[in-house]
Amino acid sequence: MNDTPAPFPAPFTEQDYAARMARAVREASGAGLAGLLITPGPDLVRLCGHRPTATTERLTLLVLAPGSEPRLLVPSLERPEAEATPGADAVRISDWRDGQDPYAAATGLLLPNGRYGVSDTTWAVHLLGLQEALPLTTYRPLSVVLPLLHAVKDDHEVARLAAAGAAADAAYEEILATRFTGRRESEVAADLARLLHEQGHSEVFAAVASGRNSANPHHKSADRTLKKGDMVVLHLGGRKGGYNSHTTRTIHVGDPTEEQRRVHDTVRTAQQSAVESTAPGATCQEIHRRARGLIEDAGYGEYATGLTGHGIGITAHEPPYLTEFEETYLVPGMCFSIGSGVYLPGRFGVRITDVVTCTEDGGSRLNTTDREMAIVE
Amino acid sequence: MNDTPAPFPAPFTEQDYAARMARAVREASGAGLAGLLITPGPDLVRLCGHRPTATTERLTLLVLAPGSEPRLLVPSLERPEAEATPGADAVRISDWRDGQDPYAAATGLLLPNGRYGVSDTTWAVHLLGLQEALPLTTYRPLSVVLPLLHAVKDDHEVARLAAAGAAADAAYEEILATRFTGRRESEVAADLARLLHEQGHSEVFAAVASGRNSANPHHKSADRTLKKGDMVVLHLGGRKGGYNSHTTRTIHVGDPTEEQRRVHDTVRTAQQSAVESTAPGATCQEIHRRARGLIEDAGYGEYATGLTGHGIGITAHEPPYLTEFEETYLVPGMCFSIGSGVYLPGRFGVRITDVVTCTEDGGSRLNTTDREMAIVE
Repeated sequence: MNDTPAPFPAPFTEQDYAARMARAVREASGAGLAGLLITPGPDLVRLCGHRPTATTERLTLLVLAPGSEPRLLVPSLERPEAEATPGADAVRISDWRDGQDPYAAATGLLLPNGRYGVSDTTWAVHLLGLQEALPLTTYRPLSVVLPLLHAVKDDHEVARLAAAGAAADAAYEEILATRFTGRRESEVAADLARLLHEQGHSEVFAAVASGRNSANPHHKSADRTLKKGDMVVLHLGGRKGGYNSHTTRTIHVGDPTEEQRRVHDTVRTAQQSAVESTAPGATCQEIHRRARGLIEDAGYGEYATGLTGHGIGITAHEPPYLTEFEETYLVPGMCFSIGSGVYLPGRFGVRITDVVTCTEDGGSRLNTTDREMAIVE
Repeated sequence: MNDTPAPFPAPFTEQDYAARMARAVREASGAGLAGLLITPGPDLVRLCGHRPTATTERLTLLVLAPGSEPRLLVPSLERPEAEATPGADAVRISDWRDGQDPYAAATGLLLPNGRYGVSDTTWAVHLLGLQEALPLTTYRPLSVVLPLLHAVKDDHEVARLAAAGAAADAAYEEILATRFTGRRESEVAADLARLLHEQGHSEVFAAVASGRNSANPHHKSADRTLKKGDMVVLHLGGRKGGYNSHTTRTIHVGDPTEEQRRVHDTVRTAQQSAVESTAPGATCQEIHRRARGLIEDAGYGEYATGLTGHGIGITAHEPPYLTEFEETYLVPGMCFSIGSGVYLPGRFGVRITDVVTCTEDGGSRLNTTDREMAIVE
């Protein structure tokens, strides 16, 4: 048992935010945009560190434009909060007061005929306010014009993801030391959730799928009691230090059958191969095909799922997606899950997933627990 | 002590939702709109009862248009969930599948050059998708074109607000029976929060402001220990059955001074008078001025706040606002808080607030606990 919580990384600095915003401006410029308009949510948190207490009808707007310093417009009541964030010194803050027109206040920060990328989650009331104040401006969703803006993480972000991964790994190690036989899936899942919290996660998910339930990739923990002979898929993660974790391991209660060993070996080998294929210049499609191909070669192609992985960061699911249709090239700093699975309907399933970061030297796992099939009591 | 939780009203029916949507269509038509476009959030919950598990990049859209039945477009994965809501039979549901263009699917439900009111909280990615699919359509925020759409509640909604109010009242009665002297504000507040939960609230707020702290209208409970001679403002409420409660009472630990009595009498009389002024045809401004005027006459005008009340329903704060500048006429079915307060800086404060509904016969309180200054130990 490991009672020491995994380490908690240092706060992001003004320099972290300044570098992220500078990169966003370069990418916007490269996409022919006059700039980016960022409103509260994950985009704003990542780029300047400001997370208003609530997302409201009061306009908060970060304007990133080539040739200008980053500008953050906030409601005057929320200015003290904005000024207290670690990224505050990397932006020039201005405010508008109740009774003033916030969109008029924003016009001074925009080109009257500019084409802007705007946060997908910006409220319509704000977008319509900007469109009315500057009728010649045009807007495109950020996810359409810069789908990979958040995909490449800086070193400090990778450190956060690594810390979240280490915390999930510690929770997994601890659950392995507990008893499984005779307990309900939901009880084991509750323990796993508690361990994730103890390891510093602020949000958690923990799913336990045993026996036939393990053959359902979307199974949530249920009342089923675990018993000898069960395959058990443990699906765990959440958020720590603002960044997400996500790992799966498949273990066995008592001795597995030869077929169970064979399927587990197939999945483990496929996932291992996908991680080894991770390198700058490889495409998401290639990584997916590598894992998928090995599963097909072993005769389990029809029992695999169509998604090998997805980006992970401030949000739990984000681009890039490791699928058949994603031709994005990997770049150092990208972080994503790599998971392989085989699900034999009505019988059992196996899944193994890690978060992996692409480095200059190839894929590096941020989950490092043993992937062999642990045998538990 | 009252251990019986306040009653929980029956679920809304298909007829409730059908009537609300029909009224929304009439109001949209009256405002010269081709219809209303409603996306996940309070608007959608109130109009058709559908609350998707999460608000996402997958389009969910309720289209309300004169001469057509209500249409609800949902992602195919979420169709079973939409079909299971109590309002499902009042809408015609269609779906779009992953890989399809949801905005193309929506075009069949809209006029190509229609002018629509759109939920304020609709995500930009969706509004931009609609604007691109139908470039001649125009959009206005719902809060701008129909600011009072949700202000007039139907009888079943008033019953929900009454049930939430009765639950808050029961929690207040119970806290009065506890000891105050020697306990911290934060302890009393925690008790109050627990009582609200026990009375069926799913979300709660509970603030205890004592002694000098009571003079700060925005005080949250702190470490201060209550003692004899303290004025104590109790600010409590939250959400029960999907509708909000909100009440304040000001009590005293031990015997009050003559001045404390005088201020409490002034506030109570002002609030009472505002409730009595509530009637169809009165304006929000008049109600506010009535309460405010009595406080000014008593010489405490500079110590009062500028807001006498706000609408309440599915959201905790909504139109109409009872302020100096709001000339909206009251209509039967409107529900709002009426609160008066006097805050003497550095000394003490008094606030008394109830939720009130406007009926044909005048204002009817949904909080009915005694407003006299309770004397506690």
